[in-house]
Amino acid sequence: MPTYKAPLREFKFLFRNVLHIERHANLPGFADAPMDLVEQVLEEGAKFCENVLQPLNAVGDHEGCKRAPDGSVTTPTGFKDAYKLLVEGGWPALGSDPAYGGQGLPHVVSLAWNEMVSSANMAFGMYPGLSHGAYEAIHHHGSDEQRQAYLPKLVSGEWTGTMNLTEPHCGTDLGLLRTKAIPQADGSHRISGQKIFISAGEHDLASNIIHLVLARIEGAPAGVKGISLFVVPKFLLDANGEPGQRNGVVCGKIEEKMGIHGNATCVLNYDDAVGYLVGQENKGLNAMFTMMNVARLGVGMQGLAQSEAAYQNGVIYARDRLQGRSLTGPKNAAGPADPIIVHPDVRRMLMDARAFNEGARAFCFWTSLYGDLLTYSPDEKVREKAGDYMALMTPVLKGYLTDKGYATATNCQQIYGGHGYIEEWGMSQFVRDARIAQIYEGANGIQALDLVGRKLAANGGRAVFTFFNEIDAFIGDNADDPQMKPYLDGLTSAKAQLQDGTMWLMQNGMSNFDNAGAASHDYLHLFGITALAYMWALMARAALDAKKVNGADPFYDVKLVTGRHFVERMLPDAAAHLTKLKSGSETLMALPADAF
Amino acid sequence: MPTYKAPLREFKFLFRNVLHIERHANLPGFADAPMDLVEQVLEEGAKFCENVLQPLNAVGDHEGCKRAPDGSVTTPTGFKDAYKLLVEGGWPALGSDPAYGGQGLPHVVSLAWNEMVSSANMAFGMYPGLSHGAYEAIHHHGSDEQRQAYLPKLVSGEWTGTMNLTEPHCGTDLGLLRTKAIPQADGSHRISGQKIFISAGEHDLASNIIHLVLARIEGAPAGVKGISLFVVPKFLLDANGEPGQRNGVVCGKIEEKMGIHGNATCVLNYDDAVGYLVGQENKGLNAMFTMMNVARLGVGMQGLAQSEAAYQNGVIYARDRLQGRSLTGPKNAAGPADPIIVHPDVRRMLMDARAFNEGARAFCFWTSLYGDLLTYSPDEKVREKAGDYMALMTPVLKGYLTDKGYATATNCQQIYGGHGYIEEWGMSQFVRDARIAQIYEGANGIQALDLVGRKLAANGGRAVFTFFNEIDAFIGDNADDPQMKPYLDGLTSAKAQLQDGTMWLMQNGMSNFDNAGAASHDYLHLFGITALAYMWALMARAALDAKKVNGADPFYDVKLVTGRHFVERMLPDAAAHLTKLKSGSETLMALPADAF
Repeated sequence: MPTYKAPLREFKFLFRNVLHIERHANLPGFADAPMDLVEQVLEEGAKFCENVLQPLNAVGDHEGCKRAPDGSVTTPTGFKDAYKLLVEGGWPALGSDPAYGGQGLPHVVSLAWNEMVSSANMAFGMYPGLSHGAYEAIHHHGSDEQRQAYLPKLVSGEWTGTMNLTEPHCGTDLGLLRTKAIPQADGSHRISGQKIFISAGEHDLASNIIHLVLARIEGAPAGVKGISLFVVPKFLLDANGEPGQRNGVVCGKIEEKMGIHGNATCVLNYDDAVGYLVGQENKGLNAMFTMMNVARLGVGMQGLAQSEAAYQNGVIYARDRLQGRSLTGPKNAAGPADPIIVHPDVRRMLMDARAFNEGARAFCFWTSLYGDLLTYSPDEKVREKAGDYMALMTPVLKGYLTDKGYATATNCQQIYGGHGYIEEWGMSQFVRDARIAQIYEGANGIQALDLVGRKLAANGGRAVFTFFNEIDAFIGDNADDPQMKPYLDGLTSAKAQLQDGTMWLMQNGMSNFDNAGAASHDYLHLFGITALAYMWALMARAALDAKKVNGADPFYDVKLVTGRHFVERMLPDAAAHLTKLKSGSETLMALPADAF
Repeated sequence: MPTYKAPLREFKFLFRNVLHIERHANLPGFADAPMDLVEQVLEEGAKFCENVLQPLNAVGDHEGCKRAPDGSVTTPTGFKDAYKLLVEGGWPALGSDPAYGGQGLPHVVSLAWNEMVSSANMAFGMYPGLSHGAYEAIHHHGSDEQRQAYLPKLVSGEWTGTMNLTEPHCGTDLGLLRTKAIPQADGSHRISGQKIFISAGEHDLASNIIHLVLARIEGAPAGVKGISLFVVPKFLLDANGEPGQRNGVVCGKIEEKMGIHGNATCVLNYDDAVGYLVGQENKGLNAMFTMMNVARLGVGMQGLAQSEAAYQNGVIYARDRLQGRSLTGPKNAAGPADPIIVHPDVRRMLMDARAFNEGARAFCFWTSLYGDLLTYSPDEKVREKAGDYMALMTPVLKGYLTDKGYATATNCQQIYGGHGYIEEWGMSQFVRDARIAQIYEGANGIQALDLVGRKLAANGGRAVFTFFNEIDAFIGDNADDPQMKPYLDGLTSAKAQLQDGTMWLMQNGMSNFDNAGAASHDYLHLFGITALAYMWALMARAALDAKKVNGADPFYDVKLVTGRHFVERMLPDAAAHLTKLKSGSETLMALPADAF
């Protein structure tokens, strides 16, 4: 059975040595979260994830969720008790607004919590995860009355939430959506239509489920400009604000999926359900998009989280499994064979996963800190940069981390040989669960298009040029330190290639949009590699500095070796992506559709 | 529900235009297989795969195999009838020796049949596939008596076979195996021990199962030099050669796996089972290895086969699914949206799969033809080259085709968005089934080690230098044809990089074997890309020649575009692999095992 240990030391290193979170102690949220307290909270959270959630991961995969003929849904054995403990522990409130009972910790802190949850039990974590999405929607766009009605119980976890976008005939292209909303005399609407792929859509964990639903008000314009956002509680609230009459929304089916079996992915049928408009009429898509950055960052993190869990279990097996001998002579001569971790190719798979995980985690936290600065900084310049970075990095982070996390999780499964293919060992689940993160919350092709089509060109490319300048400045500041050379060489090379790709896009993507589309995937990956190269340079700097203070701690040397691995064995893909993206769209678009 | 159309036109192109099989009409096997007949046979085979096997693919995945308490195993609904039709159609006999009832067709022909079976229903195809492995073992190493006893019924399919290597504590490192064989007065042995991961190990399709089992004769030397091969029928043969008394081998468990659910992966418990030595005492591993080239080529083909099935269904969805608009203006203005095949990034995923599939198929058939030449050619020089190529190409083909086939199948699943994650649509199954091919028949890391540690250096590198010379000659012969330029440029670049990597290995891999191990994966992929670049150059040549005869057929233009895609968008990975492999083993080996 797989195990999980939360990477608390990694969190500490990032918070203290890399991101220097204490420098932001003047900001709201941060002010109440000195590092000692944060680390205590995360230590407690780690215990919960390791001891309560992780043991239920395989159970959830094996049992899945069950729908009764009346549309009610039962979650896997143990989920209900675990959810109760989650709520009692106050965990759903971690990053939420104190005005509604939240603890108001910075997002960068709650992200660490979310990573642990996701590594321990991704399918379970999606229940509170979706609630947070609903919380964000109502918090940002709801009326005061709606906030008062829904937020305290979403924050406490007494109720959960969902996001309803997809319909059978439309996912990416929400302009096609048909779910309709008919205005009522009392100001409410009646919602009818079918939504599919609704995560955590129906279950037995909470006393109410708050659905956020995109629908088209009768007579609204066609396309995306006629979409409004509604809150549709499973149980309408009674005079005391408690769940009362059952609303007209029923789970019609649970989908059988490749993974995340412990989460109920529902077809939800809305039949004259009472809904309340959130924000302005016909501005529903905008309301949805404001939440997307946070949600997409969270999904990117899921790619890393599954890769981390797979890595940890890959290491255990590689140290335990005795098979064959080292190529350079026995390393366990007294035993029948050497542990397979002596083999360079096994180490390649482990080190790839490790270098990815640590770089990806840094990238998540670094980006997330800009999310906090965007929210809390009093400095307009800081907020501008933070907003630029959040917008630019979100698709990169979502796309690159989930593609790569799936690949590294698959490699860690490979270390198990035949045992990796047998469900009993749990490695297959990491791969199957990780797979969804490439698809949902905007498939990765959509992320790539968002990056090249929207984010890159915004404000004349201000965000990407700020990023280039930041990297140049860092390289300049560290150029005299010979110990930084491998990391700076890697970063310099990656950045030059990303700049080259950016220029190519600016010259060729505007004149022929198909060139931009054809380049988008490879550009996103080139960007992701460059971002991780920068993270590794930041981490190398931090490790070298920390070594001066505490040279005896092997943590920093391991970090420096792992960073070298990234430069030597993962960064070279940058060149391949650049060559591919510069090949343009001609060949891709050459064949008529019926020639495929 | 997914569908499948056998790529008959592709087979024809390869046989006639690329491999010019008719040139070998003087050889046994080929003599009786004029192309018209071969194509007729494959057409019939295609119908069987499309109409009988493919509709059972999802059934097999969904139902899996069921073990009763007595150890008997029931295959999924429909498998038994389909197997009966398979036998009645004479399909298992296709590539087998006429002396035992086989049809004696060249291996390159039976490979086309196997590809269709595997695309249509990989789990089903493993039952006759494993039988063929047992057939090969007995055919090559069995006594006359054993051949007479077992081969006719393995060839007809009346009985099936299995290969028993793995035990709980040993897979790759067979030297550790413990299953023991005790000699009996009558010359037979009694076999006891546990074997795991035995594909097609127990089922209800055939009246007998012929297990080929590696075991250690009492008192034999430790390690690989004490392993012998035995034939252990499920039912001992009676005086008439028919299944009689039940032998002491029982299925103890069916494994729950990530995929290939329709195939029974068994734990087989041998308890004093009667077995008969095949070949010489203590030479069992050699006997097993002679079959490995053929088996590994077949597994490489499975990677391609799943990618092909996933591609075909990816195309259907991409043409049907209306979502969003082309970046260059509506292409289906009358409809609510454009089909997603208008999007360059969707095409990237399709074209990657297609360019891989066609290149990989050519590589399979090209290699397989050398297998036939090795068997049938009267010319010693030809046989030497054929043997060299079979040995060298087998690990490349197995490793590269299964890694890449998994990746392209995953991309085709991605085209389906959320629907790709739902089991109902069938795309998940292609990915889950494809995954095993990277693991079994020697995990791909073992293939890579076999390549750099054994195959490359054999006979002073004769095989690889022959390959380089062949490529140089081809480039020289075609250098004057401007239409060949893109393909030759790609091939020249890939070959130069492979040569560079080969030199690096020769200089650094011998002095430090860990350098060879550290380079092995990337070297294998670099080799695979170069092999496909050569295949694409051969196919471009063939397409250009064929166009002169039949210019109106769009088949050849599509082929030429697809080859350009390979050069532009897949071949650039070669450079990344070269850079990585030349980074050596130092960083990989730097950390102590407990630092992971």
